[in-house]
Amino acid sequence: MNAPCVIQVINPNTSPEMTETIGAAARAVAVPGTEILAVCSAHGAPSIEGHFDEAIATIGVLQQVKAGREAGVQGHIIACFGDPGLLAARELASAPVVGIAEAAMHTATLLATRFSIVTTLPRTLIIARHLLHQYGFERHCAALHAIDLPVLALEDGSGLAQQRVREQCLQVKQRDGSGAIVLGCGGMATLARELTQELGMPVIDGVSAAVKMIESLHGLGLQTSKHGDLDYPLTKPLSGMFGRFNS
Amino acid sequence: MNAPCVIQVINPNTSPEMTETIGAAARAVAVPGTEILAVCSAHGAPSIEGHFDEAIATIGVLQQVKAGREAGVQGHIIACFGDPGLLAARELASAPVVGIAEAAMHTATLLATRFSIVTTLPRTLIIARHLLHQYGFERHCAALHAIDLPVLALEDGSGLAQQRVREQCLQVKQRDGSGAIVLGCGGMATLARELTQELGMPVIDGVSAAVKMIESLHGLGLQTSKHGDLDYPLTKPLSGMFGRFNS
Amino acid sequence: MNAPCVIQVINPNTSPEMTETIGAAARAVAVPGTEILAVCSAHGAPSIEGHFDEAIATIGVLQQVKAGREAGVQGHIIACFGDPGLLAARELASAPVVGIAEAAMHTATLLATRFSIVTTLPRTLIIARHLLHQYGFERHCAALHAIDLPVLALEDGSGLAQQRVREQCLQVKQRDGSGAIVLGCGGMATLARELTQELGMPVIDGVSAAVKMIESLHGLGLQTSKHGDLDYPLTKPLSGMFGRFNS
Amino acid sequence: MNAPCVIQVINPNTSPEMTETIGAAARAVAVPGTEILAVCSAHGAPSIEGHFDEAIATIGVLQQVKAGREAGVQGHIIACFGDPGLLAARELASAPVVGIAEAAMHTATLLATRFSIVTTLPRTLIIARHLLHQYGFERHCAALHAIDLPVLALEDGSGLAQQRVREQCLQVKQRDGSGAIVLGCGGMATLARELTQELGMPVIDGVSAAVKMIESLHGLGLQTSKHGDLDYPLTKPLSGMFGRFNS
Amino acid sequence: MNAPCVIQVINPNTSPEMTETIGAAARAVAVPGTEILAVCSAHGAPSIEGHFDEAIATIGVLQQVKAGREAGVQGHIIACFGDPGLLAARELASAPVVGIAEAAMHTATLLATRFSIVTTLPRTLIIARHLLHQYGFERHCAALHAIDLPVLALEDGSGLAQQRVREQCLQVKQRDGSGAIVLGCGGMATLARELTQELGMPVIDGVSAAVKMIESLHGLGLQTSKHGDLDYPLTKPLSGMFGRFNS
Amino acid sequence: MNAPCVIQVINPNTSPEMTETIGAAARAVAVPGTEILAVCSAHGAPSIEGHFDEAIATIGVLQQVKAGREAGVQGHIIACFGDPGLLAARELASAPVVGIAEAAMHTATLLATRFSIVTTLPRTLIIARHLLHQYGFERHCAALHAIDLPVLALEDGSGLAQQRVREQCLQVKQRDGSGAIVLGCGGMATLARELTQELGMPVIDGVSAAVKMIESLHGLGLQTSKHGDLDYPLTKPLSGMFGRFNS
Repeated sequence: MNAPCVIQVINPNTSPEMTETIGAAARAVAVPGTEILAVCSAHGAPSIEGHFDEAIATIGVLQQVKAGREAGVQGHIIACFGDPGLLAARELASAPVVGIAEAAMHTATLLATRFSIVTTLPRTLIIARHLLHQYGFERHCAALHAIDLPVLALEDGSGLAQQRVREQCLQVKQRDGSGAIVLGCGGMATLARELTQELGMPVIDGVSAAVKMIESLHGLGLQTSKHGDLDYPLTKPLSGMFGRFNS
Repeated sequence: MNAPCVIQVINPNTSPEMTETIGAAARAVAVPGTEILAVCSAHGAPSIEGHFDEAIATIGVLQQVKAGREAGVQGHIIACFGDPGLLAARELASAPVVGIAEAAMHTATLLATRFSIVTTLPRTLIIARHLLHQYGFERHCAALHAIDLPVLALEDGSGLAQQRVREQCLQVKQRDGSGAIVLGCGGMATLARELTQELGMPVIDGVSAAVKMIESLHGLGLQTSKHGDLDYPLTKPLSGMFGRFNS
Repeated sequence: MNAPCVIQVINPNTSPEMTETIGAAARAVAVPGTEILAVCSAHGAPSIEGHFDEAIATIGVLQQVKAGREAGVQGHIIACFGDPGLLAARELASAPVVGIAEAAMHTATLLATRFSIVTTLPRTLIIARHLLHQYGFERHCAALHAIDLPVLALEDGSGLAQQRVREQCLQVKQRDGSGAIVLGCGGMATLARELTQELGMPVIDGVSAAVKMIESLHGLGLQTSKHGDLDYPLTKPLSGMFGRFNS
Repeated sequence: MNAPCVIQVINPNTSPEMTETIGAAARAVAVPGTEILAVCSAHGAPSIEGHFDEAIATIGVLQQVKAGREAGVQGHIIACFGDPGLLAARELASAPVVGIAEAAMHTATLLATRFSIVTTLPRTLIIARHLLHQYGFERHCAALHAIDLPVLALEDGSGLAQQRVREQCLQVKQRDGSGAIVLGCGGMATLARELTQELGMPVIDGVSAAVKMIESLHGLGLQTSKHGDLDYPLTKPLSGMFGRFNS
Repeated sequence: MNAPCVIQVINPNTSPEMTETIGAAARAVAVPGTEILAVCSAHGAPSIEGHFDEAIATIGVLQQVKAGREAGVQGHIIACFGDPGLLAARELASAPVVGIAEAAMHTATLLATRFSIVTTLPRTLIIARHLLHQYGFERHCAALHAIDLPVLALEDGSGLAQQRVREQCLQVKQRDGSGAIVLGCGGMATLARELTQELGMPVIDGVSAAVKMIESLHGLGLQTSKHGDLDYPLTKPLSGMFGRFNS
Repeated sequence: MNAPCVIQVINPNTSPEMTETIGAAARAVAVPGTEILAVCSAHGAPSIEGHFDEAIATIGVLQQVKAGREAGVQGHIIACFGDPGLLAARELASAPVVGIAEAAMHTATLLATRFSIVTTLPRTLIIARHLLHQYGFERHCAALHAIDLPVLALEDGSGLAQQRVREQCLQVKQRDGSGAIVLGCGGMATLARELTQELGMPVIDGVSAAVKMIESLHGLGLQTSKHGDLDYPLTKPLSGMFGRFNS
């Protein structure tokens, strides 16, 4: 447990502002022995708001996971609420990999019987629905809400998006019959603690939750399983733009 | 209905042999007015046997979908049993997009109360399981089997993989209590018709099934929905290796 | 593929007007080689709006399937949104059998992540719910709506029912968060194409979708599985009014 | 509660021997105030072993339900393990209607955490599977078994079928990890009590279980709901062989 | 069947008024040969409105089950809508044990395709949700409602709670699209018959339903399974306050 | 984050040996700032192998949670694989409460696509099944196994139980197609790390996993939700043996 724990926090989009937001949220909860390595994708889109964006972002995530593994990090976090590339990253990594949607949802189920999700654009709701279904948490989710502003509105400095998140959370508290709120975007990471205080109910950010999960797995000496279907990818000559993945 | 129908059959891996196998299977069932445009990814892996391979392959699929859309095709087929990039491709496309796992599974439910799946490597079974769960066909699948040979064994000319598929199908018939078999790899496309005859039960290949689905949607005048979460990706400046997606 | 394809479209109710509506919808999408044989039940009810009506209608469907099989048709369509007698018909038939609810739902999942259903009387909603559950599409259905008019209102020439369907579809577009609409009655078959245009999203009629599915299965050389539980009914002396099923 | 309770036990097949078996099983558990009216279908098949048989049998069931309602019975039992025509019968009836599969499965969940099913021909297993899914008891069923003998073997006097049922039950006890057994055929009704004794675990017959359910609903003053989708069928002119249903 | 049937109706809370209400409801439906033994817990809380209350109440239930078994009763009813201690009681008992939530839910599914639940405090809704999930009736429940009054308001003589239940039931009839109502509290037992009359749809009380279930199981000669996981608890020295359970 | 974190690890049985085993496992993974307070129930059974044992154990757990809350601990762990009293404890606590089954299952889903469970007596398998269903992890569990030895065999010093666990784990690795193993008993806590090494796949102990979850929630500043159905129990006069819970 006393071994140093370097956690690579991967922002799957290319926005340096959001990388900073995410990195700050991660550092705010890391224990002393943990080092946060916040990186963002070198290739891709400045925000992720759909399946295409996710597919593109996955490549950047995988490149970072490969780099992180070569650098010997103790864990990887995929800091976008759709957890893009999660299982592919687990194949590539030897250390644990955690997505922030996964982290936030798991955490919520420990604190309340049902939770609500507050995310950005309505078109991303389907991604959250699919994750709930895949992770097994459909029955634990009371409702999903979108503030109807794009991801980057969270970084425009106006505070409008933050205000909408707050308003939506207040409505959730009054109407949904749920006991916790999951914030559905990495860019909302820094809002969780304050909203938890104001609302008097757990408001959960996946970035910080994921940091604690990686620290936990590291402390337990547990790695991504290499027995079975998450084993390392079979070695194959990758061609074209993917030549860089050939080691 | 009489308009010409060009169907882009995308082999998500880079194997020209498999592209040919798939293209032949597609042409064998296409109606006279249909033109099959069999392409393979210019970037990626020669076979797809896991989540990492799928993530890589998705980019090649999306590039092809974009090219196909610009060329004005009437539909796109993703010819790998994991249906890599299916929802992303639907965002990108205006024409319909069908995956071969999806096509084969849907088709099987029309012919039998339960079906079995025969695929290549055991590590790919999890992908089929996830698709069954996502598409809603878990209860329609009696069992999943792997012949424990890699995808490219289907193209090595030895016939060993084909023999294993046949043996597995015979066992399915005796043991599974299912009424149809879904072949779980694009490389098995040409085996379906013969096995159907030999076994006296439907053995379904997703490539040919997908061709008929695209022809059907074309005939119905139906396109991928652009209302809601499959709308075109929001326009964003893609950076690095994805610059080519900027139009 | 070039063999002639005769598709028997069975209207499970006894209304000749609806048989005509359904036949016209079928012919409108059939490819040149396909012949549509639109028939209706000689025994039963003029419309089907509940479980009792369905049970009665099933007999007429089975008689027609038997007649169609003897006539050597290449496929059978059960053109009532409850798919009455679907599995029984599959036992009786050697050719493929497709129900229009099934056809419409499958088709919708290829075009949108979630769909809505618009049907006639509220009491029929439970039938659609049960089919969603049985076919595995519960999670793909965002909402179900009834226009609260009986089936035959679609044939009364007033256009009122058609107007209500249209209004309901407009509301679905604004409120449901779904990307496609399934029309829940054979009598609505002719509305789909126009509503698709007007709404700018796929509005799906099961009759035409089913025609394409039968054409597809025919083109693929696939028949209803006779291995296992859809094998022909065991030969038994049927008594009373069912003597006519004894061959 | 003291009002007389006439229960119509409908054997959906035309076998008089099985009607007697079923009637005897019903009478063996009826309380003094209950009168058992065992009837069988006047039209249909001598045994029910598939979807086609069920569809045919449903008509006979509905005719009997109509007759029973006119005779003023206090409840109807559908004494075939597939519960053919259950919801249609509920529409037609004012009194409660219970199917024997339903009755046996409900009863089993009160006595054990999981049960096994033992039925006749393998082709009928799918019917039991569909009922488990529809009734919500999939997770309560540990396994399904078929003795691979037709229904009428239970009435051939040889005792072979009864012996196979017994052997299968003994295997269930040793292997399935379930705490109760549901007998999956009306013709097995008289075996339950003896097997319960011999095995030392509950072996449940649906006929007797259904009698108690009807007695119970009668005692509670509860009828089939006529509010909503089980309301009486809408009055329609039935034609052809169904003219007899016009009242 | 003619053997005397003593049914122990256990009120899991310590309220003598509610014990009386429950006992009266039980006696009102019992057949002549049945004796109702209404008891309440000697230890615990005057009402049960949450998981803690249920955990406490479970002990009182188990003590009563033990006493009832020693007294040779023919069945046990757990008369609180959360069915506290149901599986533990089944281990302890040789006779059948039925919970009133279970009884009411099972009964509702026999009379309507979907039911609604009306209960007391909102915080108890989660208990009903979990039971629906556990028993397999999630899809059979259209909606859950709370009158937002505590359990003991049903015994305060003001009639306010009863009025709220009635109002809620009227709203259910108009809005939920369900065909039956389940009353979600033992204290509502006496309202069911009158509301059934007034609303013209089944309103179901679990206490009376459970009485009939025990009578039924008794008549069928069926006991709680002692084969497998509901076998008697392994004998162990219980310490401290649980010494009284050592026999 | 730097605040001291006292974690109360509650052994729900009365065995001091197992309390020590569990405490040691907890301490082995706790970070420097964490203090482990291992306690066991003062009232109850020396081992927990069924629903009755769980019901009894729940009271001891709740007493300890109450004591822990009064002592100001930062989190509570319920160290029995059935997670007895989990939701009741969450009502009673202000700090987070985690069960070891929950902790192990959540952890396993982060490391493998599917896991197997190895537990003690077959009769406890149903408890694990119910938890999988309740937590949403049914599809993530490939198989459940019992070594068929009682819980206390793990503390008899012979090593037999430990050997059986090891053998069972080796079989899981060869046969189940799962990527991780969850140890299904608090008494197996100390085996996990060694088996992980030997098998080369994650073998997960819930005690240590739960410690990390509490540390994580503490670090995140998150508490059990008091908004909604996990709010503190309503204050009521508890009678008899539960008087001690009145504060």
